[in-house]
Amino acid sequence: MDDLPIVVQKFGGTSLADPERLDACAGRAADAARNRRVVVVVSAMGDTTDWLTRLAREIAPNPDRRSLDMLLATGEQVSASLMAIALRERGIDAMPLAGSEAGIRTDEFHGRARIRSIEATRLHDLLDDGVVPVVAGFQGASEIGQVTTIGRGGSDTSAVAIAAALEVGSTGGCCEIYTDVDGVYTADPRVVPGARRLDRISVDEMLELASVGAGVLQERAVVFARRYDVPLRVLHSRNPGPGTEVLRESPEMERNPVVGCALRTELGRIAVRSMPRGATVQAAVFKALSQAGVLVDDIVQTESADGLDVAFTVEHGELAEARNAVREQLDRMDIGELDVEVEIGLAKISVVGTGMRSHVGVAGVMFEALDRVGAPILNITTSEIRISCLIPQDRAEECLQSLHEAFGLSRDAEAVDG
Amino acid sequence: MDDLPIVVQKFGGTSLADPERLDACAGRAADAARNRRVVVVVSAMGDTTDWLTRLAREIAPNPDRRSLDMLLATGEQVSASLMAIALRERGIDAMPLAGSEAGIRTDEFHGRARIRSIEATRLHDLLDDGVVPVVAGFQGASEIGQVTTIGRGGSDTSAVAIAAALEVGSTGGCCEIYTDVDGVYTADPRVVPGARRLDRISVDEMLELASVGAGVLQERAVVFARRYDVPLRVLHSRNPGPGTEVLRESPEMERNPVVGCALRTELGRIAVRSMPRGATVQAAVFKALSQAGVLVDDIVQTESADGLDVAFTVEHGELAEARNAVREQLDRMDIGELDVEVEIGLAKISVVGTGMRSHVGVAGVMFEALDRVGAPILNITTSEIRISCLIPQDRAEECLQSLHEAFGLSRDAEAVDG
Repeated sequence: MDDLPIVVQKFGGTSLADPERLDACAGRAADAARNRRVVVVVSAMGDTTDWLTRLAREIAPNPDRRSLDMLLATGEQVSASLMAIALRERGIDAMPLAGSEAGIRTDEFHGRARIRSIEATRLHDLLDDGVVPVVAGFQGASEIGQVTTIGRGGSDTSAVAIAAALEVGSTGGCCEIYTDVDGVYTADPRVVPGARRLDRISVDEMLELASVGAGVLQERAVVFARRYDVPLRVLHSRNPGPGTEVLRESPEMERNPVVGCALRTELGRIAVRSMPRGATVQAAVFKALSQAGVLVDDIVQTESADGLDVAFTVEHGELAEARNAVREQLDRMDIGELDVEVEIGLAKISVVGTGMRSHVGVAGVMFEALDRVGAPILNITTSEIRISCLIPQDRAEECLQSLHEAFGLSRDAEAVDG
Repeated sequence: MDDLPIVVQKFGGTSLADPERLDACAGRAADAARNRRVVVVVSAMGDTTDWLTRLAREIAPNPDRRSLDMLLATGEQVSASLMAIALRERGIDAMPLAGSEAGIRTDEFHGRARIRSIEATRLHDLLDDGVVPVVAGFQGASEIGQVTTIGRGGSDTSAVAIAAALEVGSTGGCCEIYTDVDGVYTADPRVVPGARRLDRISVDEMLELASVGAGVLQERAVVFARRYDVPLRVLHSRNPGPGTEVLRESPEMERNPVVGCALRTELGRIAVRSMPRGATVQAAVFKALSQAGVLVDDIVQTESADGLDVAFTVEHGELAEARNAVREQLDRMDIGELDVEVEIGLAKISVVGTGMRSHVGVAGVMFEALDRVGAPILNITTSEIRISCLIPQDRAEECLQSLHEAFGLSRDAEAVDG
């Protein structure tokens, strides 16, 4: 067995939503187990996590996070047990493991823990014995042995981290992410009907797309894949097909400056005007936000005659907490009465492509496309291979379609030269 | 804190069926935590265990027991997490623990594991810190660290075993079993409307009642309570009241020869006729049944001209497995063709009381009561303080009512002198 490639297969919640679908995924794993060593990583079935969260909130509006982690972790443990049962029914020796049992060690930030290390002895032992380990994703254990969860969509991250720890690349294997779409698209096909599946994408582009809301892969998972050089593939859990391969950058991919565009909705913006010059207040404010556990997206600072204006975006769900954290922090400081403005109903639209590096004019094409549908641009942020604009959410889908067309991303379209 | 009595409170599935009821139980525990050190043990909410079992069987008709144990154990882990959340919402510092985390070590018979020991250090540490440990019942871990379950209703056993390990008696505390009835009754009040709650019952009587199907306490839990002298009390989870205290035998309890009667339904009987004399065949047959994991209830052997007739009862659910195990074992032996007869739809009706020891005529009163409603007696078994008869299940409720009346167990009834 020892010379067979190791493949980590991760199955998402939609792919496991009912016993029939779960069994189809077991079929995938069983097929792979014929000539490869397989580790399966599973999410919770369907909307189990939401259901458990609702249950907890019926009991306490702000459930204690340590207990909540133990609660939510059961969702993936159920999937892992059922998947192991399904595999054994197919004659494959399989063993369900909680994240902690699979050796996943995290820090102690319950609900949003980070993976610190993976002690892969148990997994190696099982693989050596010809057993398929079925690991509950999204969870690990802190150093004192308490169950932690690693944040929404964390099962992708579990899978890639396990693949990294098992060094699947060096065995000739890879990490396969099975989901309910058949790969990575140029844009969300539910919004842009002409969107096209990409055969290949560079890991940098994948990372940017994931960071701006392309739902198919979890950003942290891609970070792990890039850092540890884990070969990654996105596949449909029921329809056979080539999926999308996530590669290190390759020259042929530079033909089109943009490989895809993405939309992140349900954003709000908080702005503080006329802050004293310097960095003291900003430092205090963002430290307070971090202590309140708020994830801040983009930050923009501008200068006016009255001082500094700072604005940042957060998800709608965190807006109230963010506003309170900023308000309280400002009130604690001796800087006079400052207004905290809150704006809701915003979306961030982005285009991504390593080709941008060698093409000029991508920003121009983008702004023109947004202008064509009359959408105001509230904010612009860029990285080396991405441009993002903050726009009103009610114009977002129109904007995405316009962008997709402007960059010639549709099926059968010719690439534009920016 | 160290001088406060330790109380183990166990809440059953019906008492936790929805967030509202669960919160009521949390109220009980929070009240107790004011002036006692409290450990909470919980079952799975409502019919979670059945639901998970069905889910597994949709995937495989005979799910692998190791995986099934991990699956079922999640049910109690959900309850423990939610109970800890509810307690913290009430200002009580609480910590949810899986059975394994609470130090419960079992053998490796998945699905029917036996508790071997409890390593109570973690529980003591939490209690010393003023934390209420909330333990998922019905589960432990085998020596190699795999999750095991200890059989249906095992949460009672978890609670009593934890109470024994913590030596609650010596602290002035006890083990409280909260359920959806307000104590132990002279008979199931759903069948016998005049059934009366007992203020006290001896642990021997409780054990016999539990062993013949009085559902209020798990037999194994009572065995533990007797062996380790754990003070036990059965209480209603929502209605305050004195409940039933389970005591070592006391003289005043000998007034009525019978304290209660019970019914176990859904039984089948397997009989093998004309077996060769000696004990070889019986030994082989019952060993085969044990290896098949079948729980045999009563065994009756009679002798006829053709040899030995052996019959035993098992639950309906295990009848097929039992029949096959017997059939296969007989076929492996060189003893000619023997018939294996199977009968279904039987019930066992029992009367229990330590007073039987000093009263004569209890059996006569019992048979007369059954005869009065015209029920045939298919089998009789006795212990020092119990008489049981096997009867057709369709006559069972009538028989129970008749017995209850014959022994004067109803409210306001005078005790008969047997």
